[in-house]
Amino acid sequence: MNVTRVAILGAGNGGITAAADLKAKGFEIALFEMPEFGGNLDGIRKQGGILLQDTKGEAFYEVDVVTTDLEEAIRGAQIVMLTVPGFAIELFAGQLAPLVSEEQVILLNGAAAMGCVRFVNKARELGIQKEFKIAETNSLTYGTRAFPGEARVELSLRVKKLFFAAYPHENSKELLAVCSQIYDCFVLADNIWHTTLENGNPEVHPGPSLLNAGRIDYSEGEFWLYREGITEHTVKVLRAIERERMAIGQAFGFQLEDAVQSRARRGYFRNEEEDLQTLFNTSEVFTQIKGPHSVKSRYFTEDISSGLVLWSDLGKAAGVPTPNIDAVIVLGGSLLDTDFYRDGLTLQKLGFEGYTFRKLIESV
Amino acid sequence: MNVTRVAILGAGNGGITAAADLKAKGFEIALFEMPEFGGNLDGIRKQGGILLQDTKGEAFYEVDVVTTDLEEAIRGAQIVMLTVPGFAIELFAGQLAPLVSEEQVILLNGAAAMGCVRFVNKARELGIQKEFKIAETNSLTYGTRAFPGEARVELSLRVKKLFFAAYPHENSKELLAVCSQIYDCFVLADNIWHTTLENGNPEVHPGPSLLNAGRIDYSEGEFWLYREGITEHTVKVLRAIERERMAIGQAFGFQLEDAVQSRARRGYFRNEEEDLQTLFNTSEVFTQIKGPHSVKSRYFTEDISSGLVLWSDLGKAAGVPTPNIDAVIVLGGSLLDTDFYRDGLTLQKLGFEGYTFRKLIESV
Repeated sequence: MNVTRVAILGAGNGGITAAADLKAKGFEIALFEMPEFGGNLDGIRKQGGILLQDTKGEAFYEVDVVTTDLEEAIRGAQIVMLTVPGFAIELFAGQLAPLVSEEQVILLNGAAAMGCVRFVNKARELGIQKEFKIAETNSLTYGTRAFPGEARVELSLRVKKLFFAAYPHENSKELLAVCSQIYDCFVLADNIWHTTLENGNPEVHPGPSLLNAGRIDYSEGEFWLYREGITEHTVKVLRAIERERMAIGQAFGFQLEDAVQSRARRGYFRNEEEDLQTLFNTSEVFTQIKGPHSVKSRYFTEDISSGLVLWSDLGKAAGVPTPNIDAVIVLGGSLLDTDFYRDGLTLQKLGFEGYTFRKLIESV
Repeated sequence: MNVTRVAILGAGNGGITAAADLKAKGFEIALFEMPEFGGNLDGIRKQGGILLQDTKGEAFYEVDVVTTDLEEAIRGAQIVMLTVPGFAIELFAGQLAPLVSEEQVILLNGAAAMGCVRFVNKARELGIQKEFKIAETNSLTYGTRAFPGEARVELSLRVKKLFFAAYPHENSKELLAVCSQIYDCFVLADNIWHTTLENGNPEVHPGPSLLNAGRIDYSEGEFWLYREGITEHTVKVLRAIERERMAIGQAFGFQLEDAVQSRARRGYFRNEEEDLQTLFNTSEVFTQIKGPHSVKSRYFTEDISSGLVLWSDLGKAAGVPTPNIDAVIVLGGSLLDTDFYRDGLTLQKLGFEGYTFRKLIESV
């Protein structure tokens, strides 16, 4: 399939950046946002496009279609790319599933949170039995910040390597051939368990943020996780969570990348040689990121509820103990008066309750 | 028994303060320190006594005996009072057990860490079969800071209420009658499980300190737990640990005091009506306390290893789940590269392995 047109759903940091970047690469672009967030499109509509600023300079790119009409957005697109937070997957799935064709490739571009399964489950719930062509990555293809009102993007990194898997995994090679036409950074993952376990956020955000919760409160949001929160000792908890994640991966048959490798290969760290704390404390991309501003931020809520909770469940399925992951889930829950085990993303909620470990692996 | 002479072992904050305060009350005092810490006594020897400063003014008190000779220290004393950190119990027990008589009352004055049992176990290990008269409190009788070099004490609080229990508990009333001659703040606890569960430190120190670990590192010790570390959200973790402690107490048959009650009744908080965070943030005593200066401080190490680990074990024995306590033990351990479950104070190490819950209660 020859890709000429891409529909981008979600006009946040990722979507606005992708619209400009893919336009720069010569694709026709439709940028869609839900009507209730349609204000995000006003600036771009007014300017007729997006100003893309990166390390090399800046350029303005017109966007072909800017719309809150989903049908219009996906018309004629070979790839329908979702750049939305994990919690919005079901919302978008509910609207997109009835409209998308079995030929169009749905690409979930962002931190992996079992979006493919959740998309298909939502469609089935609505009685839609299409064979979706759907795939996901382990992280967003950009390090970026968008200013929708100014129709402007500050792009700090085009990510150099990301894992990619289709659901079911039998489709991975076919869909990779399609999606590689718009991004050259994708490498084939075994399946979406693999991309899920290569999502870096649940390892880096909730643990170190938890170990700075008092400071986040006390400073009233004047906090910089990567500059001041990744320290000699908090990094040890990060590493402990990492050891558990990698042990789960090993039980699944994956040799996962560690925190240094994955960020260096994606382009966030300058090398793989220095120690993790130094690399975070000095990363040109990460040190520009302020926050989390509050313990109610997604660094706690989302990365625990749809990250660590699922990893903990995968650990149980694989027979791998996850004491540090569980400790963050428990203390994060107490901090926020939330039962993350109850509210979070579990194998049961994904429809895999009671599966043997082998069946679990083969189900995706 | 009429108390006229008290031997105070350990010349730290508690011991130096007690020497002056009990002298002020008219008792003969011997102040002892281990030879290796004998430097703590130099200032007092030089001045011949201690300057006691409290809210009402200051006064100088001579101390009758200042010594590194343990036999000399305890000679003629009706009460031998240990004011030493939990980790030093076995060290002092090893030297005191052969010398102390069965008539002398040994009082462990400080944060409870099963000192009575550990003292007796150490004596038995050395083949000493005396029937010790030994008791302990749930906390130190003072809020205070000593400056040994200047032979000076800044006493901010004479504690108003403390729990007191002898080991075995059958001796409690008899020993209370003796020890009440030197302190009027003691009330009878059921037994030393009760004093152990009324030790406030494991509840307040490790959890909130853990939630500020990044800040403690980053600020290089410029940290004030009670002013800036007890916040809207960290206090929720403190409360979660408290709920677990109180549930364990209930299983033992105790109605324990909560964090506000215990500190208000001891005199650290001005009332029991305001919320816990405000009381900590504004306490005249607590807000003067700087630190912890490092994650290697006793707020982490000792209060996890001989506090939370034991509470977790008691929870198991009582059938009470302790997820928050366990989470702090796990993350504190990862932070410090320590296996606190292995190194900490467990029922096994106390000699109670395999006891039924009933036998456990009756053993003290």
